[in-house]
Amino acid sequence: MAVWIWYPQDFEIDLCGKVEFRRRDHGMTYPTVWRLDAPSRSVHFVKKYTLDAPGTIRIFAQGEPYCCIDNLVVPDRCETVELPKGTHELRVGVMSLHSLPALYIDGALETDESFVTSDDFVHFVPCGYSKLFDAPEKRPEDYRLPTRHLDPVGKTKEGYWDFGKESFGFIHFDAAKDGECIVFCGESVPECDAGMGAELWDRVQVKKGQHVRIDTRALRYLRIDGDVEDGSVYVEEEYNGLPFRASFKSNDARLNKIYDVSAYTMEMCTREFFLDGLKRDRWLWAGDALESVMMNPYSYFDSETTRRTLAALRGREPFTQHINRILDYSFYWVISVWEDFFATGDASFIRSIYSKMVSMMEYTLSCCNEDGFIVGRKQDWVFVDWADMSKEGELCIEQVLLWKAMDILHRSAELLDKEEDAARFGGIADKLKDKIMEVFWSEEKGTLLHQRLNGKVQGHTRYAPMFALMYGMLTPEQEQLVIANSLLGGDAPKITTPYMRFYEMDALMRCGKAEEVLSDVKAYWGGMLDLGATTIWEQFDPEEKGLEHYAMYGRPFGRSLCHCWGAGPIYLCGRYVLGVKPLEPGYAKYEVAPQTGGLHQASGSVPTTDGDISVEIDGEHVTVSSTCGGEGTLIWNGETVQIPAGTKEKPAVVKL
Amino acid sequence: MAVWIWYPQDFEIDLCGKVEFRRRDHGMTYPTVWRLDAPSRSVHFVKKYTLDAPGTIRIFAQGEPYCCIDNLVVPDRCETVELPKGTHELRVGVMSLHSLPALYIDGALETDESFVTSDDFVHFVPCGYSKLFDAPEKRPEDYRLPTRHLDPVGKTKEGYWDFGKESFGFIHFDAAKDGECIVFCGESVPECDAGMGAELWDRVQVKKGQHVRIDTRALRYLRIDGDVEDGSVYVEEEYNGLPFRASFKSNDARLNKIYDVSAYTMEMCTREFFLDGLKRDRWLWAGDALESVMMNPYSYFDSETTRRTLAALRGREPFTQHINRILDYSFYWVISVWEDFFATGDASFIRSIYSKMVSMMEYTLSCCNEDGFIVGRKQDWVFVDWADMSKEGELCIEQVLLWKAMDILHRSAELLDKEEDAARFGGIADKLKDKIMEVFWSEEKGTLLHQRLNGKVQGHTRYAPMFALMYGMLTPEQEQLVIANSLLGGDAPKITTPYMRFYEMDALMRCGKAEEVLSDVKAYWGGMLDLGATTIWEQFDPEEKGLEHYAMYGRPFGRSLCHCWGAGPIYLCGRYVLGVKPLEPGYAKYEVAPQTGGLHQASGSVPTTDGDISVEIDGEHVTVSSTCGGEGTLIWNGETVQIPAGTKEKPAVVKL
Repeated sequence: MAVWIWYPQDFEIDLCGKVEFRRRDHGMTYPTVWRLDAPSRSVHFVKKYTLDAPGTIRIFAQGEPYCCIDNLVVPDRCETVELPKGTHELRVGVMSLHSLPALYIDGALETDESFVTSDDFVHFVPCGYSKLFDAPEKRPEDYRLPTRHLDPVGKTKEGYWDFGKESFGFIHFDAAKDGECIVFCGESVPECDAGMGAELWDRVQVKKGQHVRIDTRALRYLRIDGDVEDGSVYVEEEYNGLPFRASFKSNDARLNKIYDVSAYTMEMCTREFFLDGLKRDRWLWAGDALESVMMNPYSYFDSETTRRTLAALRGREPFTQHINRILDYSFYWVISVWEDFFATGDASFIRSIYSKMVSMMEYTLSCCNEDGFIVGRKQDWVFVDWADMSKEGELCIEQVLLWKAMDILHRSAELLDKEEDAARFGGIADKLKDKIMEVFWSEEKGTLLHQRLNGKVQGHTRYAPMFALMYGMLTPEQEQLVIANSLLGGDAPKITTPYMRFYEMDALMRCGKAEEVLSDVKAYWGGMLDLGATTIWEQFDPEEKGLEHYAMYGRPFGRSLCHCWGAGPIYLCGRYVLGVKPLEPGYAKYEVAPQTGGLHQASGSVPTTDGDISVEIDGEHVTVSSTCGGEGTLIWNGETVQIPAGTKEKPAVVKL
Repeated sequence: MAVWIWYPQDFEIDLCGKVEFRRRDHGMTYPTVWRLDAPSRSVHFVKKYTLDAPGTIRIFAQGEPYCCIDNLVVPDRCETVELPKGTHELRVGVMSLHSLPALYIDGALETDESFVTSDDFVHFVPCGYSKLFDAPEKRPEDYRLPTRHLDPVGKTKEGYWDFGKESFGFIHFDAAKDGECIVFCGESVPECDAGMGAELWDRVQVKKGQHVRIDTRALRYLRIDGDVEDGSVYVEEEYNGLPFRASFKSNDARLNKIYDVSAYTMEMCTREFFLDGLKRDRWLWAGDALESVMMNPYSYFDSETTRRTLAALRGREPFTQHINRILDYSFYWVISVWEDFFATGDASFIRSIYSKMVSMMEYTLSCCNEDGFIVGRKQDWVFVDWADMSKEGELCIEQVLLWKAMDILHRSAELLDKEEDAARFGGIADKLKDKIMEVFWSEEKGTLLHQRLNGKVQGHTRYAPMFALMYGMLTPEQEQLVIANSLLGGDAPKITTPYMRFYEMDALMRCGKAEEVLSDVKAYWGGMLDLGATTIWEQFDPEEKGLEHYAMYGRPFGRSLCHCWGAGPIYLCGRYVLGVKPLEPGYAKYEVAPQTGGLHQASGSVPTTDGDISVEIDGEHVTVSSTCGGEGTLIWNGETVQIPAGTKEKPAVVKL
């Protein structure tokens, strides 16, 4: 099957520019605050082929194609080209200034992953492609998500329309008079009330009867100041068109609702890329993305979105600043690459991006101090979390993430049979781990401390302990100490963002604390639902009141009310309550170890690369039905049973 | 005065893409065979200002602007913005996917070189700008050269038009019938005769009466296969619009003709950038560019064209391949930067591009062997010249160029007060020079040998000796040996391209060999005129016959008949016959030391930054009239006299 091909990662880099260009803010386009790369402008595609008989190919290009056979030009347009029989080299150069250079050939020879490409005529690498673009008319440059009609469910008052829940799309209406219309988008009614004080609004000059279409905006409520034809207002909703492959139901209606709203939040934020916030911030962020990447196998299992996101975030060489300018985010990016591989078992993405993993980590290493620790420089944003904490000096959490990223680089090198790299990165990781434990572990507190500043190891936050626990850095004894002293007890401040609560809950679930976690989920996530949330928020503090819930970044409506990092319950329910997780890459081996946390009934399904694993827990018993080709182990009430490979025709069914 | 501003070098990089995109070949767009960079897509401009009273500014952008004062957003369109009085920071971000992000502000504050800019929100550098774009409507993205109407001088036969001399522009005609027209461009009649065997042709589908405009092509002759309205054919000639500031006349009509044709060749090739060949190869080449850069002070003295060319050639970071993929061309690029500085005395370009000079030379150093010598790798094209020679192993000419580039890096660092760099690069240069002389100087032959291959120093070509001589690497005794043993005598093969003859003649002129050089110029350049050349060719071998003159690169009409590297006589006449050259940067000190080479009369003018130096040689006497503000020395027949600073109102006149 022929597909459009391009220089690897260039489609994603170009699309990222288009998507990030759509971020609006106070009536303006908000330019990224990091380097935004453009795709290559001049690319050559090469294929050595063997044909038994002469054959004709058709050539389609985004940009201007130039065709050579065995280094000799094929003159004149090159829409169709006769290929001679035998073994020859076909080379097609494509140059384009304003769109991604891309190529599609069908006929006697077809463009596919076997073509190599170069953007400098020297270094040739396997081309990039996507199965989305498998016909001449399916041009990568025309890629947009599908849309569908969405009518308002009603009006909250005159000039205010309510779409019933968070939505995202093009806004349509017909003007009733000549003049100006100002269109305000609100995730809440007060945001619409705030007028120009809101985050999202557009001015349009209109003529009577004119049909207006405003570019994609996030909204639940719409206010239009201006005269609009009755009944003409609707949203052309843009949606991802992917099948949501996971499900969850339990005897607890509140948890079910939380799952559904989380799933809808994930749906809203799974667009061309994983976006963090729909309304305000339509950019890619590697920290937010890691959580989406981890949730993806428990929702869409769509690795294309993951890989698009990661390719776009990394951009082009050279690596001159941390991803999103945030130190931690570079590490999350590396971890995301591995998460995708582990879920899918497909190493092709690691293979294509490995050199960029190495260059970014070499850059990072060049910034480390004599202990091998990384410290944020003036230009680095040390983020960690939206919470009060000292971020000076050597932060333990940053070292833990650096270690994990280095460990993944080591594993990736092993996977790709790069022995020298594997030895080097493995050595650095091991040394770093020892140093972290030596410096930051407090015997007195029985946990990892927060920072070393001016030689003094001090402070206590939950971040380093929980990540060290999650990433397997600790001994079983240390794990228990950390749970007792940092997560369930101790004097570390509570976490207030769904962002970091995600990891905290993951760490606790890993240690079997389902009851504590589910109770917390119901209180915290449920608190948002009680306030009418139709999607999960960027931040939630149950102590806040009224308009306080909408404010952030010093702006009265700065807070995003649809933020992907809040969708964590879909991950928790699939991975821990239903208990399904891969033990080897691509679910070659997997485990089903439900933790009901007090639920009597729970059932649902978790997708895998090649099938689904359905789990039904009813009172004392659990039944697994699997169409996954890997081999599973069901663990329940201390008992263990093997789950054989299943197929769609013949699911494997196991009961305990 | 307000000007449009951008991220430094991005305008040039973007324009280079547009210009190189216009290269046509066999009916197709020819993609570059090196990395072609795109400008930044998201750029921020910052200015800290102080205003005594509040003031209004108007903001114009290429792309979408986003305005902040003291880090707080100024909502809503930002076409005009009120600036508060006092000291504040204005920041305007501009994002653009399909054009260069650029900004123009006028009113209470104006965009100029005092703005800093960043493409990653971290590293802020002085912005780029050009005085060409000094009004809101003079947008950098609209930049095109001016055009003028050019009628054919006649027809050579039916369907063939002759424009009298080499030209360049849009081709216009009216179709007389429905159907296809094929438009062939020829620098010669035989090229038109060759039809699709020619380099340049375009197919167009036309309707009767339709006016056709074909994009810029180089041609003297035009053939149109198809029905064309009588009298409708013309060229909309594109020209550079710059004043040609130099002149030369002598008692030798043949030399005068050579000067004029050379000047016209320079005119044709001085476009947005210095292009090498007009017809075939409308790309930028650093080797060809160096000669244009050296000729520029003896013709247009337009440093903008030089700097545009050099900025575009260097492109963006990272430096991952030699400029044009040619080892020697990286060195010529560095040398060009210094030539521009030395002619203009203006260090601003070196200052803006210094970091890119360093990064490319660091890349080069990382490829050097233990002797500090550079050897072409598999991906490097070791060009030197179109001539048979061994290019294996360590070539002396490449080491000489490397030394010169390193020496310039050392001087540039000194100029910019970068002491550490200066010491480092100076040390490398000195060590390299010693090593070159130690390894390649042959006492037996009395010159520099060609290469070291498998430990054996061998071969003899003119390249290393003449560059070593030109660049002051030799002692006076060695210079004389080299002239005798490599240039005027000895067994080194003759040079057959105007490209390398340029340097050969420069080297000989430096040593006072005007008579030999002028006689050679008249024979060699005159040989092309005798064959009807209206511009100087890419290559000329007097031994060739008929169609042989048009062939190159294995293609019957591959040779360019308008090639800038052939314009050398304008440099020779100005710099050596009239004898005008700067001794210090920007003509602060200069010399007039005419070498008539047997001419009885010669007169002309050489431009400087701030005036002109006119020289009139008549029999025994020479008169200099200078409006240049620098101090000159006139040297004539062993006598010396000072030329005081002149002004436009009061030229300094000196006679000997």
